[in-house]
Amino acid sequence: MRIRLTVAYDGTNYHGWQKQTNAITVEEVLTMALRELLGEEVELAGASRTDAGVHALGNVAVFDTATSIPPGKIAVAVNRRLPEDIRVMRSEQVSSSFHPRYAESRKTYEYTITNAEIQPPTKRLYSYFVYIPLDMGRMRRAAQYLVGEHDFGGFCSAGSQVMSTIRTIYDIKVWEDGEDIRIRITGNGFLYNMVRIIAGTLIEAGMGRREPETVWQAVEQADRSLAGPTAPANGLTLIGIQYVNEEK
Amino acid sequence: MRIRLTVAYDGTNYHGWQKQTNAITVEEVLTMALRELLGEEVELAGASRTDAGVHALGNVAVFDTATSIPPGKIAVAVNRRLPEDIRVMRSEQVSSSFHPRYAESRKTYEYTITNAEIQPPTKRLYSYFVYIPLDMGRMRRAAQYLVGEHDFGGFCSAGSQVMSTIRTIYDIKVWEDGEDIRIRITGNGFLYNMVRIIAGTLIEAGMGRREPETVWQAVEQADRSLAGPTAPANGLTLIGIQYVNEEK
Repeated sequence: MRIRLTVAYDGTNYHGWQKQTNAITVEEVLTMALRELLGEEVELAGASRTDAGVHALGNVAVFDTATSIPPGKIAVAVNRRLPEDIRVMRSEQVSSSFHPRYAESRKTYEYTITNAEIQPPTKRLYSYFVYIPLDMGRMRRAAQYLVGEHDFGGFCSAGSQVMSTIRTIYDIKVWEDGEDIRIRITGNGFLYNMVRIIAGTLIEAGMGRREPETVWQAVEQADRSLAGPTAPANGLTLIGIQYVNEEK
Repeated sequence: MRIRLTVAYDGTNYHGWQKQTNAITVEEVLTMALRELLGEEVELAGASRTDAGVHALGNVAVFDTATSIPPGKIAVAVNRRLPEDIRVMRSEQVSSSFHPRYAESRKTYEYTITNAEIQPPTKRLYSYFVYIPLDMGRMRRAAQYLVGEHDFGGFCSAGSQVMSTIRTIYDIKVWEDGEDIRIRITGNGFLYNMVRIIAGTLIEAGMGRREPETVWQAVEQADRSLAGPTAPANGLTLIGIQYVNEEK
């Protein structure tokens, strides 16, 4: 049977999700814990290959197993074999045709900025510190140019191999939460570094270093040099993935 | 002149505030950074000797200096010499008679509990994970017995040398913040482990392991064995200290 896991992690100490040589990744640690628990080979397929340092509340992965452990109990059982900075929040059986990367979905990411004179130390791992005051109105105006179906080739780092750079952003919210600013983006998929480049671009608008309208040029011309810098990984969290053809 | 620092830290990697042999403490790291910055001997006097693993947003410390750096600029200057998990949030000149431990003050602590089936990994350093559902009404009823001036000898770990175990708690608030429960306590001073023992006692009441009314017996009889266990350090944060005879 095919099992779907909802996986949360603190990305601080990992080189991202995807397995690689000579670096510890979430996928590798989780695969080893599942193999130990189930006593069989396990091949994980993940939904989102988050970068080094990026956090997740709800990444999704599937694997096939012949285990007799009830699907809903796998989460608690595997958590006993995982380090504290990785937790399986939920486990459930899904159709054997379900693939978390190819099934139609809405992904939601949140980027957190601490906008204060001095960064409180307990926030340093989970938000990007910006001491220049950010203008929320300018950030929101800049964000509106990104909503909709567009060619986001200008908001993508080199090194990704994708068939198309067209994606749909359904919603971007920018709001204040105490001294933090949160940017929450929901879309049907994201290119390599796309959320972090959007965050970097909105921060430039908020600082007054670019006019909000220039974001439209970066979209229209699909030119990476017209968008802002890639904001640091620690501010980014994958909130969750909703699969479109499922009741949730 | 005497300088007062407002100090924030992530206590995860420190053996508490106070200097000790063979262990890294916040006081020691801050003292060394100030000595480097000022080029003179520095003796810090701190307000609150937080335990290993306890966090602070606003601990207070003073030192005397002959520096020509303007008092308000010391914070930013010393932060450049501090690790990211310690930050001086504010620096200011105070009267040379001011002592942060002996001046009359109101201290506020917050204890955070994540009450969920599985703990999200990004919270593990800053909240205590309790998977048994907690009843907020019972926790609030238990808390009310602690407000006021009482002998808190029953809410104090062995090993402290104090003249009196009488303290005043001005206020205890217990509220839900998403899947977290926060306990915020303001008092004129706290005994060794007192806030963590209060948290442990309120958690027992919330779990249904004790009746809220039994808290009054623990207070009245000043008997440590009638109070609950000491809750773990990572859930505790010193929010701030307000000095009574000052305009803030």
